[in-house]
Amino acid sequence: MRAARRVLLSRPASGDICKLFKDIKIIGFDADDTLWHNEPFFRAAEKRLLELLEGYGAPDYLAKELLAVEVKNMPLYGYGIKAFTLSMLETALKISNNTLPAQTAAAILELGQSMLKKPVVLLDGVQEVLEILGARYKLVVATKGDLLDQQRKLTKSGLVKYLHHIEVMSEKDEENYLKLLKYLNVKPQNFLMIGNSLKSDILPVLNIGGCALHIPHPDTWTYEQADPGEIKNKNFAAAGKIKDILKFL
Amino acid sequence: MRAARRVLLSRPASGDICKLFKDIKIIGFDADDTLWHNEPFFRAAEKRLLELLEGYGAPDYLAKELLAVEVKNMPLYGYGIKAFTLSMLETALKISNNTLPAQTAAAILELGQSMLKKPVVLLDGVQEVLEILGARYKLVVATKGDLLDQQRKLTKSGLVKYLHHIEVMSEKDEENYLKLLKYLNVKPQNFLMIGNSLKSDILPVLNIGGCALHIPHPDTWTYEQADPGEIKNKNFAAAGKIKDILKFL
Repeated sequence: MRAARRVLLSRPASGDICKLFKDIKIIGFDADDTLWHNEPFFRAAEKRLLELLEGYGAPDYLAKELLAVEVKNMPLYGYGIKAFTLSMLETALKISNNTLPAQTAAAILELGQSMLKKPVVLLDGVQEVLEILGARYKLVVATKGDLLDQQRKLTKSGLVKYLHHIEVMSEKDEENYLKLLKYLNVKPQNFLMIGNSLKSDILPVLNIGGCALHIPHPDTWTYEQADPGEIKNKNFAAAGKIKDILKFL
Repeated sequence: MRAARRVLLSRPASGDICKLFKDIKIIGFDADDTLWHNEPFFRAAEKRLLELLEGYGAPDYLAKELLAVEVKNMPLYGYGIKAFTLSMLETALKISNNTLPAQTAAAILELGQSMLKKPVVLLDGVQEVLEILGARYKLVVATKGDLLDQQRKLTKSGLVKYLHHIEVMSEKDEENYLKLLKYLNVKPQNFLMIGNSLKSDILPVLNIGGCALHIPHPDTWTYEQADPGEIKNKNFAAAGKIKDILKFL
């Protein structure tokens, strides 16, 4: 899956991007790992969790158990740091066969809280790109996760001034994108979505007739991965990083 | 505080309600404990938590500790069942001085998950009121809490067909109500908010010039309570239960 992604990255995408921008009126941006770093914080927390739990199994085994618990809890908890913290705790209790020391449970709670307090670090070029695109297009952010946490990050990011609308969705699926476009009063062919997750930012938007630009992030959660090799769609392009967009304006 | 609320309940509110409805174009409903039962599930979970922790202190002491942890975590976690579960765990670890047995931690996690799986039980008369009001006004729901959990409840409630828009807010404050009214393209004087929380549904709406109808719920979380005796506003009225509205139409 990762190999397939690398192939895509090496493909020149200039022509596609030019065409993509032609009829666009509104541009939607994913937030986590498109505008700012996010997954690296989850990876670091996971690494710390595996250290805390090293007495209970090898890192690979523990990571697999964590992912299984996260996926099981997805319909109930949804996305975000609170959901992740609860799933870390459940994993720890499970793999310890309910012998987890209270200190470790407390350390996991604190790990979750420290994630919620992390600063917002913009990805390279984001501020510049939003400033330039904001003068020509209506910009919106479409993200998922904890409502409060996403709003906290948007406020801290200093990007709110470039944004026409911010939509926090429980799931980035076709139905919710259609609702967003209806609210924005824009046709799918005039809407471009930019993001790092093929599953959440690209495929559902292409499926409703919208345009999509994939900007991969080196850390993308296993759950979000899809195979870009399968995407054959005239409305789809890929770029190496967000600043590449500026070459085609 | 509870005494003050009881005085208000005994005050006839008919004239106020008639005036309130005169210029209204859009009616907003709070969801939890206005459309369906919610706080009773939190109370039941809290009762169960205090039983699980009875070795560590008297119920009153434990309840006070829980509230203190919830209020401390509010800026970080926000509202909802995931936040509540994390605060229950933190309280248990704290009052046990980090000696909590893993089984108890697991039981608390399960308590939170069972809350997320609870059925939606509409309050008496809600379906009827929404059906009748829906024919004359645009109806919206304005609620706070977990995005995913609120959407789950709205879907299960069967009420979505009466609703023009659903807004899940991280905090029901003046700023967010102003944003909502802007989105709905309605003036404050043409907007009526109906809810059980003076703090979240009534006071911020009155403060921005909107109209508000208070329908108290016997269980209202301490954190949400305010003194209705202080409200002297021509745009404010109170009713005993949601069905009372129908008498004035």
